[in-house]
Amino acid sequence: MTKIVIIGGVAGGASAAARARRLSEEAQILMFERGPFVSFANCGLPYHIGGEITERSKLLLQTPESFLARFNVDVRVMSEVTHIDRQEKTVTIKNLTDGSEYQESYDFLLLSPGASPVIPPIEGINNPLTHSLRNIPDMDKILETIATNRPDHATVVGGGFIGLEMVEAFHRLGIPTTLLEMADQVMTPVDREMAGFAHAEIRNQGIDLRLGTALKSVQYAPTTSIASENSGEDEVHQHIQGELTLTLSNDEQLTTELLIMAIGVRPEIKLAQEAGLQIGALGGIVTNPAMQTSDPSIYAVGDAVEEQDFVTGKPTIVPLAGPANRQGRMAADNMLGRNETYQGTQGTAICKIFDLAVASTGKNEKQLQRDGIAYEKVYVHTASHASYYPGAEIVSFKMLFDPQSGKIFGAQAVGKDGIDKRIDVMAVAQRAGMTVEQLQHLELTYAPPYGSAKDVINQAAFVATNLIKGDAVAIHYDEIDNLSEDQILLDVRNPGELKNGYLEGAVNIPVDQLRQRMNELPKDKEIIIYCQVGLRGNVAYRQLVNNGYKARNLLGGYRTYMFANK
Amino acid sequence: MTKIVIIGGVAGGASAAARARRLSEEAQILMFERGPFVSFANCGLPYHIGGEITERSKLLLQTPESFLARFNVDVRVMSEVTHIDRQEKTVTIKNLTDGSEYQESYDFLLLSPGASPVIPPIEGINNPLTHSLRNIPDMDKILETIATNRPDHATVVGGGFIGLEMVEAFHRLGIPTTLLEMADQVMTPVDREMAGFAHAEIRNQGIDLRLGTALKSVQYAPTTSIASENSGEDEVHQHIQGELTLTLSNDEQLTTELLIMAIGVRPEIKLAQEAGLQIGALGGIVTNPAMQTSDPSIYAVGDAVEEQDFVTGKPTIVPLAGPANRQGRMAADNMLGRNETYQGTQGTAICKIFDLAVASTGKNEKQLQRDGIAYEKVYVHTASHASYYPGAEIVSFKMLFDPQSGKIFGAQAVGKDGIDKRIDVMAVAQRAGMTVEQLQHLELTYAPPYGSAKDVINQAAFVATNLIKGDAVAIHYDEIDNLSEDQILLDVRNPGELKNGYLEGAVNIPVDQLRQRMNELPKDKEIIIYCQVGLRGNVAYRQLVNNGYKARNLLGGYRTYMFANK
Repeated sequence: MTKIVIIGGVAGGASAAARARRLSEEAQILMFERGPFVSFANCGLPYHIGGEITERSKLLLQTPESFLARFNVDVRVMSEVTHIDRQEKTVTIKNLTDGSEYQESYDFLLLSPGASPVIPPIEGINNPLTHSLRNIPDMDKILETIATNRPDHATVVGGGFIGLEMVEAFHRLGIPTTLLEMADQVMTPVDREMAGFAHAEIRNQGIDLRLGTALKSVQYAPTTSIASENSGEDEVHQHIQGELTLTLSNDEQLTTELLIMAIGVRPEIKLAQEAGLQIGALGGIVTNPAMQTSDPSIYAVGDAVEEQDFVTGKPTIVPLAGPANRQGRMAADNMLGRNETYQGTQGTAICKIFDLAVASTGKNEKQLQRDGIAYEKVYVHTASHASYYPGAEIVSFKMLFDPQSGKIFGAQAVGKDGIDKRIDVMAVAQRAGMTVEQLQHLELTYAPPYGSAKDVINQAAFVATNLIKGDAVAIHYDEIDNLSEDQILLDVRNPGELKNGYLEGAVNIPVDQLRQRMNELPKDKEIIIYCQVGLRGNVAYRQLVNNGYKARNLLGGYRTYMFANK
Repeated sequence: MTKIVIIGGVAGGASAAARARRLSEEAQILMFERGPFVSFANCGLPYHIGGEITERSKLLLQTPESFLARFNVDVRVMSEVTHIDRQEKTVTIKNLTDGSEYQESYDFLLLSPGASPVIPPIEGINNPLTHSLRNIPDMDKILETIATNRPDHATVVGGGFIGLEMVEAFHRLGIPTTLLEMADQVMTPVDREMAGFAHAEIRNQGIDLRLGTALKSVQYAPTTSIASENSGEDEVHQHIQGELTLTLSNDEQLTTELLIMAIGVRPEIKLAQEAGLQIGALGGIVTNPAMQTSDPSIYAVGDAVEEQDFVTGKPTIVPLAGPANRQGRMAADNMLGRNETYQGTQGTAICKIFDLAVASTGKNEKQLQRDGIAYEKVYVHTASHASYYPGAEIVSFKMLFDPQSGKIFGAQAVGKDGIDKRIDVMAVAQRAGMTVEQLQHLELTYAPPYGSAKDVINQAAFVATNLIKGDAVAIHYDEIDNLSEDQILLDVRNPGELKNGYLEGAVNIPVDQLRQRMNELPKDKEIIIYCQVGLRGNVAYRQLVNNGYKARNLLGGYRTYMFANK
């Protein structure tokens, strides 16, 4: 009889437990969880705070009782595994309710400890109005602080998934909110110019977004001293009413009444490290494609592990629920004699930012540059479905690829409709090893309410293939401000479109007049063409080069340039 | 200088014209269109009739003037090409406005004539209250009939895309509607049991849906004789007020005031046939992967052609806008010296049926059976996004695959949210040659508003892989009514769920009690397990077989069985 011990009862651990039981009735399966809940919907926590998910109980997907009844898994909550003895193949468990300790043996051990919020050692950060959000008790504390302190202002530090979701939650609750982000952009999975769409949306919603701004210190001023034990106060932190004075990296000060630290997470590796398991350079538990650690009896999955990056083959840490769930299932397979291999992580991700979705898969430009990989990129802005049918929204799409082979490196999309779909298509195409040329042939669903006869992805593939075949020569938004004397700007939009902005010094000849007015342009200069999104620019480009001009077309047009500066 | 003549100015023809000009400034490009409009949004016509697209002008994407200005294409509307002289490489054009005829030479000819509605020779069908819908004039006539006859009842014959869209249009206008369909299902791209969801939705909306019912004859009774030349009346058909008495195949009679014939379309091959071009067994113009006809100077694209089926490699006719557009672009490439090959048609399609989307890609079960291809299938019903986040809807999903290799044959999905996305994912995966086992590893966008950590597609892949690996043995909905004495039915749902229906004779043991009550089940019979959607059934299946029972699980559960009978 195989005895499987699982440490951590959320995504990866819970998936492994259920799968293991489906494979074997005989296996003994124990699952230890340090916190009071297993298998809760951690991705849903911000939405309960914001009130979109009204019932807290909906976040509790399983209980120890339901796991026992359905899967005959012995689930022990409030049970922290404090030590692994690899020689004896035992773990020591501390019962956090009564303080007692005991041991359990294992044949296979699964580590699914997750990751914990990074709290930097900022002066004054340890106060009762400052929270991070990882689990149900964290959520309850935030809700209690909101109820008790009735904040007139909240501050979120960190513009990643949780930070952005918390900003939206506070906005829904009518609490004016400041978002501090040390980098020059939110949502690091996408590149800076794509994040510009998010910045515009966040500011449009009235959020005080401060980029390039870090938190330097916190001063806490309690206003009363009524204790609230329900919200986790203790003798040291008994006040959850009061205000905080934040000092920022630019030495400005900001008064706030609720502070959320969401600058990132760090793998929980203490137990693995103490047990002498190999820890990688990125700070995660090293795993092989079978999800085994350096000890073949110990598997590890989820936010705590380093796995293989799908694109580069190098180690990566991607703390997301999808990989955690699939890895858990696979670890169970392998513990019970199957031979499954994890196929690498693309890092496919999406975040709702008010009405906008921001999503990506594969590598972004920053990563490709860091890794010294040669790439080309295209931008397309086009309707999420037939533009003549109500409800169409612009999909702003970026695709990165190998300029020689056409291999897909990554894709990013932002917009109000159909964003998840386009990135899913790209995630599948990338995983399947397709080239951008092959994407031209994709046959996607089309009816006016759902798509276009030539989908966003087809269009991006046409543009990319034009570049590869030499049918187009691109210029990008970040080159526009550094043009030489030998280049001139040509705006081929209609004059009426220029009132919303144009590039200084551009000549305006609408594309439909270009054939007649081409002689107004010099043949000895390179003509830098742009339109609103790049489509008419391409028509103009083809006219000009077919008539012997030198030209380039600004991919993504004025729209990409404009939002890159948001 | 290459002279390109294009016959037909909508999807394929217009795409070819624009692409040809982008490739060459020198080419002379002429486009002839028999009707008064080019490049109109034919997929949008039903939505303008129904009022969702309020402005008729939105359907007119391009005009001859805009084509000339942007692409220097000589567009001639109301110009019917009546003859092709392949030896001389000329076409004869009849100007439908003044009746004059003239000739034009060509270096390359592109046929993009489309398909025309099939109107069977039904007695009385030729009357002013009966219409089909292919183009703007057809749409205008229907609108005129509605305005003039103010129908209290409309009848649509044919439950394909246009028929279903017209039913919805009439419903939006408040006109009670009957839908007659000769087959036992609407939407033939999906299989009968998946169409059941559409049948339920159509009937829920109050539509009088009659399956297995054909139109036998029509009797027209005019009520006035006021002529309306605007609506296309002439001396013979001058009445658009009155009513029709329909006699149906079951000899029932039905009174209606507007009749739409939408039983299908037939390739327009008259011109090609008279020119001696090869016509295929399916009745379309034969093309090679370069989109060339049997005459290398003549290309053909769109609804009129036979192209290669992506899955079977056999000729197929798929009259959809996506393939037409891509083929047009590619034909232009090849006429101008490129070497592009069309990669086959999967037939990816989607239709909005009231709140439901019904979509498919690849081959369906009927086609696989007809072609004698061995297949397996799985059904999954699961939430379109995290079920704890508001707005989740059930995605009902069917996947067909090779039971040996796992190669994807096709997929179908029905539901109110996320249907286009799932079929797009499957269309890409199929085109890339992925197996169902590889689909387990797909890393799709996940955040609670958009998806689940284990997406519908991952789940379907798990089920399929379980079948391939022998971890599950399936029974399907259509075998349930023919169980033998050696099989017994086990319902593993909670007793409360049975009030909405159950299978006669089933024993009810909730899955969470099964381990305790397993001894109530016989070991000498095969236990046919079912739950609501198949998931708990699989848990029960694994328990039973791991304890030495013989069992099968009903894939898709009671839900598939129930809707198969709608």
